[in-house]
Amino acid sequence: SRNIRLAVIPGDGIGAEVVTEGLKVLEAVGTKFEPTHYDLGAARYHRTGETLPDSVMEELRGYDAILLGAIGDPSVPPGILERDVLLKLRFAFDHYVNLRPVKLFPGVETPLGDTSAEDIDMIVVREGTEGLYAGTGGVMRRGTPHEIATQESLNTAHGVERVVRYAFDKAMTRPRKKLTLVHKTNVLTYAGDLWQRTVNRISEEYPEVTTDYCHIDAASMFFVTQPERFDVVVTDNLFGDIITDLGAAIAGGIGLAASGNINPERTAPSMFEPVHGSAPDIAGQGKADPTATILSVAMLLDHLGLQAEAARVEQAVSDDILERLAGWAARTTREIGDDITARVSG
Amino acid sequence: SRNIRLAVIPGDGIGAEVVTEGLKVLEAVGTKFEPTHYDLGAARYHRTGETLPDSVMEELRGYDAILLGAIGDPSVPPGILERDVLLKLRFAFDHYVNLRPVKLFPGVETPLGDTSAEDIDMIVVREGTEGLYAGTGGVMRRGTPHEIATQESLNTAHGVERVVRYAFDKAMTRPRKKLTLVHKTNVLTYAGDLWQRTVNRISEEYPEVTTDYCHIDAASMFFVTQPERFDVVVTDNLFGDIITDLGAAIAGGIGLAASGNINPERTAPSMFEPVHGSAPDIAGQGKADPTATILSVAMLLDHLGLQAEAARVEQAVSDDILERLAGWAARTTREIGDDITARVSG
Ligand SMILES: CC(C)[C@H](C(=O)O)[C@@H](O)C(=O)O
Ligand SMILES: CC(C)[C@H](C(=O)O)[C@@H](O)C(=O)O
Repeated sequence: SRNIRLAVIPGDGIGAEVVTEGLKVLEAVGTKFEPTHYDLGAARYHRTGETLPDSVMEELRGYDAILLGAIGDPSVPPGILERDVLLKLRFAFDHYVNLRPVKLFPGVETPLGDTSAEDIDMIVVREGTEGLYAGTGGVMRRGTPHEIATQESLNTAHGVERVVRYAFDKAMTRPRKKLTLVHKTNVLTYAGDLWQRTVNRISEEYPEVTTDYCHIDAASMFFVTQPERFDVVVTDNLFGDIITDLGAAIAGGIGLAASGNINPERTAPSMFEPVHGSAPDIAGQGKADPTATILSVAMLLDHLGLQAEAARVEQAVSDDILERLAGWAARTTREIGDDITARVSG
Repeated sequence: SRNIRLAVIPGDGIGAEVVTEGLKVLEAVGTKFEPTHYDLGAARYHRTGETLPDSVMEELRGYDAILLGAIGDPSVPPGILERDVLLKLRFAFDHYVNLRPVKLFPGVETPLGDTSAEDIDMIVVREGTEGLYAGTGGVMRRGTPHEIATQESLNTAHGVERVVRYAFDKAMTRPRKKLTLVHKTNVLTYAGDLWQRTVNRISEEYPEVTTDYCHIDAASMFFVTQPERFDVVVTDNLFGDIITDLGAAIAGGIGLAASGNINPERTAPSMFEPVHGSAPDIAGQGKADPTATILSVAMLLDHLGLQAEAARVEQAVSDDILERLAGWAARTTREIGDDITARVSG
């Protein structure tokens, strides 16, 4: 089989460090791949004023997948890089499924006192191309006492149906086959009604899947008090942003949280990235945990049809984490990468 | 001094049970008050088709304060009672401060393993009359594959400034004097910019207050991993809804979470209510914990200038909770109310 053509965007802060380890594991697992690095992020922005030129965007379109480290730096006004690189890629490549497993690996410490690994094993299917992320809205009389600023959440039948359908398919692959819609239907009545009706309608095609509903406020509470309520969660872009960070927190921290920005129809490359940001405060010190990136590599392999390889990477991570329990000394970014690489090759 | 004129809205589900205990404590603390009950909620809706008639609204306007149990029942389509009673009151009476303490009482079990009472002691100042709660938005081509549903977040300089100012004043009353804005400025750029500029500008009038900023996704994580980061939090209506439920969860559950819907200028009565909902599944069984309502009564007393009485109620609750540690048997709603009442009177 031909080589996997992989675009690599290390990005800002700890991005480069964690991506290096991710690529090491990818190589060790025996996949043939050709990586091409793209220097998007703060450095390029400062050098050229560019964030993501159209020409680069069109090049990226030609790859099989994208591996991204992290985007964002305090030297750039908040939001510019996030919107012009990260969100632009999600929208342009129609990454309508933002897939975020929330799974407590055995041996990982959770901040929740009374919780064991079986209690936290869900997958959040976050919509990735609509809602309040559309960027619409505006401002009038800025800086005056009469200023008004608006934001708009745009939700379409097309956009909601496809992600809901994906979530039902995902639920069918899991033992519990339970799907929970998280929204705020009692306040966001127009959007909530569209989401709820869509789930109701599609559920008829999936009689084996149990469906449930939870307001976002209650869901945030239940993530902490009863995480075992959730199996597959489907939700909109902003609610998904919030509960997946919360999910990362209960499952041992964003050092372990992987994600895939997925275009299920493969009309453009999907993009895999750790949920953590660029963490500029610890950049360049070898302190970052590359595990989230390595788990994102496993998701990438799975997306490309390499299920056995994906499983080997996941298993290596899971074994590595179990060893942490035994009380290993703190390891550097590279040491963690090396240890997981050794398990994958060995 | 004249009697306090109190409008009481027991509402649905466990509302009536918990409000009864709240009133008992109010009486025991020695305040002279005249309660008038209003039967708003599901029962009235089914009987008359009405939710909150204008005439009742105008009557309510004449009271010194409102005590509300809970609104919402599964027999009524989702959102109707919430919007037409609860949100209507918040908007009409300009309850622009939705004040929600997140405080772990000594002796209360938190789901967070490693956290002690000193770590969780914050107060969330949630905006109550704007944002996505404005109810604006719409739907087109409903029920077709071309449906589009929108929601709008409306934010005004007037609305943001007054609640931010309130939050700074609140921060000044606290030992740490720290104010954290929670928003999502990197995505909700128009609204986020208004909020951030407003905080920056007002902060110049409060040189003693340290200000901080946190994205809502990161804040949700920090509530679980580092709750001690937060002292006073100011945020918009929807983000406030989410993090105060999360706050209730980390501080021992919504059985203890109180809130005040406050009109600081007193142009209309403020309204006090437990954060928990109507919990129809346990209604009428004496299982509900009235503590959140009793703490809401303490907030009501404080708002009416009866600080000593408020402190006595808070102390009684805090003592009662400490006793729970000693391993009391489960008590009914009334028993908890009686025990706290006895402490207040004794
Ligand atoms: C960086 C930011 C724009 C992004 C988002 O809000 O989606 C991040 O928080 C995430 O969850 O991937
Ligand atoms: C019942 C609902 C409309 C309400 C809200 O969203 O504000 C509730 O969740 C709350 O927090 O008081």
